[in-house]
Amino acid sequence: MSSQFGNKLKISVYGQSHGKAIGVLIDGLPAGEKIDMDELNAFMSRRKPGGKLSTSRKEADMPVFLSGLTENTTCGSPLCAMIENGDAHSGDYESIRYTPRPAHADYTAYVKWAGSADMRGGGHFSGRLTAPLCIAGGIAKQILAKKGIFIGAHLKAAAGIWDESFPLFPDKDMFETIASKAFPVISDEAGEKMQAKIMEAKEELDSVGGIVECAAIGVPAGFGDPMFDGVENRVAGALFGIPAVKGVEFGKGFDCAGMRGSENNDPMTVLKNGSISFEKNDAGGILGGITTGMPIVVRAAFKPTPSIAKTQRTVDIRDNTKTEISIKGRHDPCIAHRAVPVVEAVMACVILDMILEGK
Amino acid sequence: MSSQFGNKLKISVYGQSHGKAIGVLIDGLPAGEKIDMDELNAFMSRRKPGGKLSTSRKEADMPVFLSGLTENTTCGSPLCAMIENGDAHSGDYESIRYTPRPAHADYTAYVKWAGSADMRGGGHFSGRLTAPLCIAGGIAKQILAKKGIFIGAHLKAAAGIWDESFPLFPDKDMFETIASKAFPVISDEAGEKMQAKIMEAKEELDSVGGIVECAAIGVPAGFGDPMFDGVENRVAGALFGIPAVKGVEFGKGFDCAGMRGSENNDPMTVLKNGSISFEKNDAGGILGGITTGMPIVVRAAFKPTPSIAKTQRTVDIRDNTKTEISIKGRHDPCIAHRAVPVVEAVMACVILDMILEGK
Amino acid sequence: MSSQFGNKLKISVYGQSHGKAIGVLIDGLPAGEKIDMDELNAFMSRRKPGGKLSTSRKEADMPVFLSGLTENTTCGSPLCAMIENGDAHSGDYESIRYTPRPAHADYTAYVKWAGSADMRGGGHFSGRLTAPLCIAGGIAKQILAKKGIFIGAHLKAAAGIWDESFPLFPDKDMFETIASKAFPVISDEAGEKMQAKIMEAKEELDSVGGIVECAAIGVPAGFGDPMFDGVENRVAGALFGIPAVKGVEFGKGFDCAGMRGSENNDPMTVLKNGSISFEKNDAGGILGGITTGMPIVVRAAFKPTPSIAKTQRTVDIRDNTKTEISIKGRHDPCIAHRAVPVVEAVMACVILDMILEGK
Amino acid sequence: MSSQFGNKLKISVYGQSHGKAIGVLIDGLPAGEKIDMDELNAFMSRRKPGGKLSTSRKEADMPVFLSGLTENTTCGSPLCAMIENGDAHSGDYESIRYTPRPAHADYTAYVKWAGSADMRGGGHFSGRLTAPLCIAGGIAKQILAKKGIFIGAHLKAAAGIWDESFPLFPDKDMFETIASKAFPVISDEAGEKMQAKIMEAKEELDSVGGIVECAAIGVPAGFGDPMFDGVENRVAGALFGIPAVKGVEFGKGFDCAGMRGSENNDPMTVLKNGSISFEKNDAGGILGGITTGMPIVVRAAFKPTPSIAKTQRTVDIRDNTKTEISIKGRHDPCIAHRAVPVVEAVMACVILDMILEGK
Repeated sequence: MSSQFGNKLKISVYGQSHGKAIGVLIDGLPAGEKIDMDELNAFMSRRKPGGKLSTSRKEADMPVFLSGLTENTTCGSPLCAMIENGDAHSGDYESIRYTPRPAHADYTAYVKWAGSADMRGGGHFSGRLTAPLCIAGGIAKQILAKKGIFIGAHLKAAAGIWDESFPLFPDKDMFETIASKAFPVISDEAGEKMQAKIMEAKEELDSVGGIVECAAIGVPAGFGDPMFDGVENRVAGALFGIPAVKGVEFGKGFDCAGMRGSENNDPMTVLKNGSISFEKNDAGGILGGITTGMPIVVRAAFKPTPSIAKTQRTVDIRDNTKTEISIKGRHDPCIAHRAVPVVEAVMACVILDMILEGK
Repeated sequence: MSSQFGNKLKISVYGQSHGKAIGVLIDGLPAGEKIDMDELNAFMSRRKPGGKLSTSRKEADMPVFLSGLTENTTCGSPLCAMIENGDAHSGDYESIRYTPRPAHADYTAYVKWAGSADMRGGGHFSGRLTAPLCIAGGIAKQILAKKGIFIGAHLKAAAGIWDESFPLFPDKDMFETIASKAFPVISDEAGEKMQAKIMEAKEELDSVGGIVECAAIGVPAGFGDPMFDGVENRVAGALFGIPAVKGVEFGKGFDCAGMRGSENNDPMTVLKNGSISFEKNDAGGILGGITTGMPIVVRAAFKPTPSIAKTQRTVDIRDNTKTEISIKGRHDPCIAHRAVPVVEAVMACVILDMILEGK
Repeated sequence: MSSQFGNKLKISVYGQSHGKAIGVLIDGLPAGEKIDMDELNAFMSRRKPGGKLSTSRKEADMPVFLSGLTENTTCGSPLCAMIENGDAHSGDYESIRYTPRPAHADYTAYVKWAGSADMRGGGHFSGRLTAPLCIAGGIAKQILAKKGIFIGAHLKAAAGIWDESFPLFPDKDMFETIASKAFPVISDEAGEKMQAKIMEAKEELDSVGGIVECAAIGVPAGFGDPMFDGVENRVAGALFGIPAVKGVEFGKGFDCAGMRGSENNDPMTVLKNGSISFEKNDAGGILGGITTGMPIVVRAAFKPTPSIAKTQRTVDIRDNTKTEISIKGRHDPCIAHRAVPVVEAVMACVILDMILEGK
Repeated sequence: MSSQFGNKLKISVYGQSHGKAIGVLIDGLPAGEKIDMDELNAFMSRRKPGGKLSTSRKEADMPVFLSGLTENTTCGSPLCAMIENGDAHSGDYESIRYTPRPAHADYTAYVKWAGSADMRGGGHFSGRLTAPLCIAGGIAKQILAKKGIFIGAHLKAAAGIWDESFPLFPDKDMFETIASKAFPVISDEAGEKMQAKIMEAKEELDSVGGIVECAAIGVPAGFGDPMFDGVENRVAGALFGIPAVKGVEFGKGFDCAGMRGSENNDPMTVLKNGSISFEKNDAGGILGGITTGMPIVVRAAFKPTPSIAKTQRTVDIRDNTKTEISIKGRHDPCIAHRAVPVVEAVMACVILDMILEGK
């Protein structure tokens, strides 16, 4: 199923960017969970367009709950939420209908659905579809928090500038501090440099990519399954559902390919309270697909926003001739910083799913 | 389901390293496909231990087909294959039963299954479980080849030494050439250096990691689904099932996070034969989760073999005390080069699954 | 996932009877299918309450399409439809909150969700949830019709009165004739008697059950899979999702248990046009889970409407004491005749799913 | 997936009747469960051929466990069991290769797999495939018994002769008594008559059908899910996987279609110990797809054995001409009594799956 993920907790995203509405259907939420709507809205506003760094498209993006809640409390039946599409300028896209935008899904969707795809505003492939993901993730985060599990993320890199990494044991306060920032980094100095680079790219009618680092703390050891249903499989399988993600790594990730075993292996130890732990966390909290009890650490690489105003070479699919395109409309010169809460949302959904499945 | 992947073509792996047998159950193979057993065995022998660089454990690893074939031809019902475990030295592992090996699943499996896991030789987490994956993948490769789809891989990096990358359009001959080498690299010079580094690590009772690059050619545009069932989601979700994989990236992958959109976007073009193509392939053959018709290119990062003879700090899980461990037994100082056909196998299974599902 | 069925075509139903809206999310529809909205509305109106035999609750029940369509044509992305709940009298149900209605899900939902279930009007278990099923089924029927596959049903029995059975080869005209009737039977004489019996039960503050017989014609031989994914498994698995269904049988069904093999086996034959066929169809068009090319015939037994005005013995779940209940509100004395299009809808979804999967 | 069922506990059956082996792969069993092999073998021997009423094919049918067990205790990884095929007379079937046996899957499998199906002995459709189901079910029964859940079944009808029904509260002793009988009925008098009728049919080169009634006791209220993942959906979806099942009903089943609501509704009551219960169990222990805490009662209708020695009309698929067939080989004149443990097995797997999923 194209637009669904999860085992016991199933998240199905629907909608096209310029259709009537976008939304999410969530099946498998535990019953009796009170949702704090202010907190949910605060979470969702973190991914909203806003400021000089992002699209000028304005959307309230407040979800309407069609089912699954009574008095803001989950009632056991599937939760369906909807966000109506308001401020859509479809006219911006008509001009590009037959000239696929490079690095977009325009061409592949055209081939797949033989011309029937609704690609206005990117259609079902639009970054707008991450708003419903944040509804699901925001709810999952609240349920996890009651279990002592917290999820945070920051912009690890953008435009070639690197933020600090999470420490060995990031905590809830750190997550909240980052979440409260207008630009979600650990080092504000790095953040300033990134923003300058993003503005520079924007002025040059171009865009940049970035890397989001996300951690989940408080997940006990023993969750996840071996081989194809492990934490890495499931988190990666879901993260690649966020538009523009081209790489996912856990713990030391690609760097561990250049390391020695004696360097990469995390020695085990016993804490003062007698519990078993690890001296470091190059494994990113996962061994054999199963949680170790250490923070789960994942990074996702986002390609540069494909929509750029610079002239690009493309084709006319009506007669298979070469042509050029200069994309108008409202586009973010970087989407990676707005993707920070989206990565958290996906992580929260997968972690809650695993917790609900039990060991 | 922990040990299964695929939608229409379902691959379920079973077995423990030192149990009676390991194997694979494949449901959804098209009927009437003749399997060339010599070719299958040749493919499987590529991942076999052998030579100075690998474990001295000897296994014939020839599969016995319990069902699904008549006269080596698929008959429509599920195919079950089995490899009996012969040369197992379980005694090697008894000493480590209560002292989890760092970077192994010993501890997480112990917690998950409350001490009931069969971890002799790594149990269900052993690299040996990649042999049944190669049965499935070897069969998938043969079926794909008849459709003009070919899959090849090489060791892109090991111990910090880098091989060349695949060219823009790798071809079947290149795949065959690499597959025929004792050490699967494009540049034999790089390969020599890697092997020297691996031997060096071995002599120092240590191990190294590596990166496998895999490409699929001949896959038409339009396969795969948006969001959570795209090519990237499915390939990554399956690749993380190979023991020791800690990162997966497509096309430019993590590098694209540092690029400009004008640099990363692949301009479209029209070939002399009138068909639509791309000038380059930073997208790795996938846009919006759907194939572009260009080669599908993926890289998987393998951590260093966790089993090393060097003394490491660990714990005794019987009384939660600190202790040390020096792993005996037969272990590869690097598994990444033996993982090359395994990555091909997983890729073949996922691609065949997508092809069987249709556009 | 509780409220979803289907393999390639996935139908997810959401909503509570007295919540904001009910609806359906359909993933996997082929793209480019034009939906005739008048035809869809005509189909949906067949299950609507109306007349003396049914609840006086009035609902327009016209779906709003949130996604998946452009100009009434499927666009490849998931289709989400919504029906807003208007005429809800929740007050009717407050009195019964702690006194489960016999033969309803009140008690089981209370136990399952520890008191959090929204059971106003039956909540997610309400017969109202069959309206979204009819949206999905109505669309599936239109797509199937273009492939020469037609689905029809009639009320085979109600209140102990039996309608005629479908002939060996029911045709499209017969289906349309039945569908156009106010009371969907083959024999109007039997229909009159049924209606009299239903009215009689209503006057006695009681209700009756019934049996719906459904047939699909035009399905070629060779669809469906052996064992657990056969036509019977899938049709039955979905039909039991319609509230009040307590039995499902195919072809001769339970009667074949009393037959001889020589009597039950359908002899094969060759038609004048040279094609292979069967002399009769006791198999209901299915052998080994796979279609034979004959009409697929299924019957579903519906229990009497559990809501009756007669006084019944129940319990008070607050203090586990015995009490009585007399159900007020608007209820159908029989739901089986209104279930006729619902059975068609479910059948259409399953058949289309199988067709989309291919042989 | 054709030959798999279950959500958290996944049962995959493999093998062809005259292939090398048949077997089952079970994923999701809890770890640390000790399997009593004598008890398992005793359970499996209940479905074995034997005596005058059944095929003379002899099979030891003792499973070999390839994985998933250490010292007969589940170890968390998938359990694969195999039964080697010994006493196969494929020659018996060669004569019928091109003349499909009426009421068998010969024709449908031929069409589906374009002639590639291995239909020797019925291939993957053979009743022999119920032996691996009994391995899974026998294990599930043992795990359930430790939780106070017991499953029993009896032959409710055969050849038109009816056994008594289960009482309102069947108990474990009753199940064991029936299981210990050579012919699994409650009333031995009815059993004698059935056997006489079966022998009569056999002498007339014919066969008969039957009905199996199965009950599960000790399942607490609150398990199962609404709509499409309820107890009925799952039990029925799995039961139709047993060859020859053509109908499934719960509680009063088809009979409730002729009842009044006041008659069919089960009044609720409070037991002396203060717990909530029902005065009767026409619902078969299920309301809204969720368990009520009463015994779960299901009946499955088995068609007469399709293989009969009497001459039947069929076709030659090589040239689409009419011909006749008289089936030789060893066949049961009735399979319903041997299906009694198979129905228990399927029920046990589904119930265990639901229990493992939790409320």
